[in-house]
Amino acid sequence: MNDLNTTDTIQQYIKTTALTVEKEMLAMIPETWSIPSPLREAMKYSLLAGGKRLRPILVLAAAEALGGKTEAAMPVACAVEMVHTYSLIHDDLPAMDDDDYRRGKPTNHKVFGEAMAILAGDGLLTHAFYVLVQAFRRFGVPAEQALAMVEDLSVLAGPKGMVGGQAADMIGEQGITDLSQLEYIHTHKTGDMIVFSLKAGARSAGAGEQQLKALEKFGYNIGLAFQIQDDILDLTGDEQKLGKPVKSDEKQQKVTYPYLVGLEASQAKVTQLTDEGKAAVLQAGFARPERLLQLADYLMERDH
Amino acid sequence: MNDLNTTDTIQQYIKTTALTVEKEMLAMIPETWSIPSPLREAMKYSLLAGGKRLRPILVLAAAEALGGKTEAAMPVACAVEMVHTYSLIHDDLPAMDDDDYRRGKPTNHKVFGEAMAILAGDGLLTHAFYVLVQAFRRFGVPAEQALAMVEDLSVLAGPKGMVGGQAADMIGEQGITDLSQLEYIHTHKTGDMIVFSLKAGARSAGAGEQQLKALEKFGYNIGLAFQIQDDILDLTGDEQKLGKPVKSDEKQQKVTYPYLVGLEASQAKVTQLTDEGKAAVLQAGFARPERLLQLADYLMERDH
Repeated sequence: MNDLNTTDTIQQYIKTTALTVEKEMLAMIPETWSIPSPLREAMKYSLLAGGKRLRPILVLAAAEALGGKTEAAMPVACAVEMVHTYSLIHDDLPAMDDDDYRRGKPTNHKVFGEAMAILAGDGLLTHAFYVLVQAFRRFGVPAEQALAMVEDLSVLAGPKGMVGGQAADMIGEQGITDLSQLEYIHTHKTGDMIVFSLKAGARSAGAGEQQLKALEKFGYNIGLAFQIQDDILDLTGDEQKLGKPVKSDEKQQKVTYPYLVGLEASQAKVTQLTDEGKAAVLQAGFARPERLLQLADYLMERDH
Repeated sequence: MNDLNTTDTIQQYIKTTALTVEKEMLAMIPETWSIPSPLREAMKYSLLAGGKRLRPILVLAAAEALGGKTEAAMPVACAVEMVHTYSLIHDDLPAMDDDDYRRGKPTNHKVFGEAMAILAGDGLLTHAFYVLVQAFRRFGVPAEQALAMVEDLSVLAGPKGMVGGQAADMIGEQGITDLSQLEYIHTHKTGDMIVFSLKAGARSAGAGEQQLKALEKFGYNIGLAFQIQDDILDLTGDEQKLGKPVKSDEKQQKVTYPYLVGLEASQAKVTQLTDEGKAAVLQAGFARPERLLQLADYLMERDH
């Protein structure tokens, strides 16, 4: 596979990368595996159910920022999307958010039943660690960097990370009272995996501590900006572009950033977080930071 | 911590090891973590809900067979038990086996609700990989060996391993017809994690390929013997010693080894599998294979 074209617009870059990642993910659940076919089908169904593929794109953009090879970053990109996909399957379960549809398609448990959906999620999470290790086995990422990726993933997707954020969100539905609780949920439910994506992509290209620190700052900033922007779009967006009804947060009495601090302050916060994130990347002196900076702007300016 | 006493009987060895592993597992979910407390409590509840601790004991016995240090094997032992515990929490869910009690205690979802039980399982599985990496971070296991442990765990607990076995078991409840299907379920649902325990324990002590191969043979043999012995005890055991009603498999019309090949052939199979497993260990020339051999006999001769 060639490195992604550097003259593409950010929209083209996102589209091309998403397609490549989908193809690679499929290849990582080969038909030659002797496993029960409903399990295989359930895993593939959700992996291929679309989505922005934001996290794998951040992996590849971070690797590119350091002048790294797309090949070595690709297993990391796939692993990240597998973990994200598992989290969506489990979040949609009747005992959790009880969603029947995601992106216009029936959710995993509606198609395969709850038992297979739980197992498909468990399988994707576990297999993601295998895929991560392949950066070492097949693409020359040093063992210590690969092990640091495994450690980062286990922390940022685990009880102190994404799982903790999801638990807080579940509990919080009984009533969030302040901004710090809301930020805890956003940081862990979404921010942690964005930070993992950036750090692991950078590690695949041999990043040092300073660069990892800058990406951490960048990641938490654009992660929170992303969430606040979601809340803003729910209030001000175009239903056609969003592909879902607006003002659903209000109807569900969901406590959001605009609800707590107002729309104007929320918009100012998105801009501030994005600018500070970009500044952190610029100061770290990456060889090719363009895609990261473009992605930050793209996320801030999106209307869906 | 000192190495476990080598003059203990196997019963004392099992008891002492189980207590040590419980203490160490607790320390790996520290109170200082800033995570939602229902999540922490749900994870701890099932980790401390008892059980034979067979898998961590196999980890430590395999490390001991190579003359390795208990300290370096302990994170591996804890990681294995965390993965086993997550699998029990998810298996007990209403959508899976729908069990209200395990070892006389209410199951995780009966105490914490289904959502928290799913998340506690997800959290334990993810955290297990962190704990595994600590064998490298804190106890000098080389990065490549630690990474091989991560890879083994992701395969043997993943879609091709334990998760696949559980999926086959779910599907098989609609009717298993032959021995090969039953062996697929036993091999993956139970055997794979027993093999992982032995291999990872050995890796923590620097095992080579020949030794790992011998332990793989030993593990699949005693794993299958263990399952068949379970089926035999359900037919011939003492309810008092087992702590559960006998003949439950018959009542549930479960297809078992004795059902398919008869009681006598099943008993002969347990002996044969155990003997061949022990022979593999003896031929591999371990420095201190005694505990492994004792454990194989203990599992075959147990009456509960």
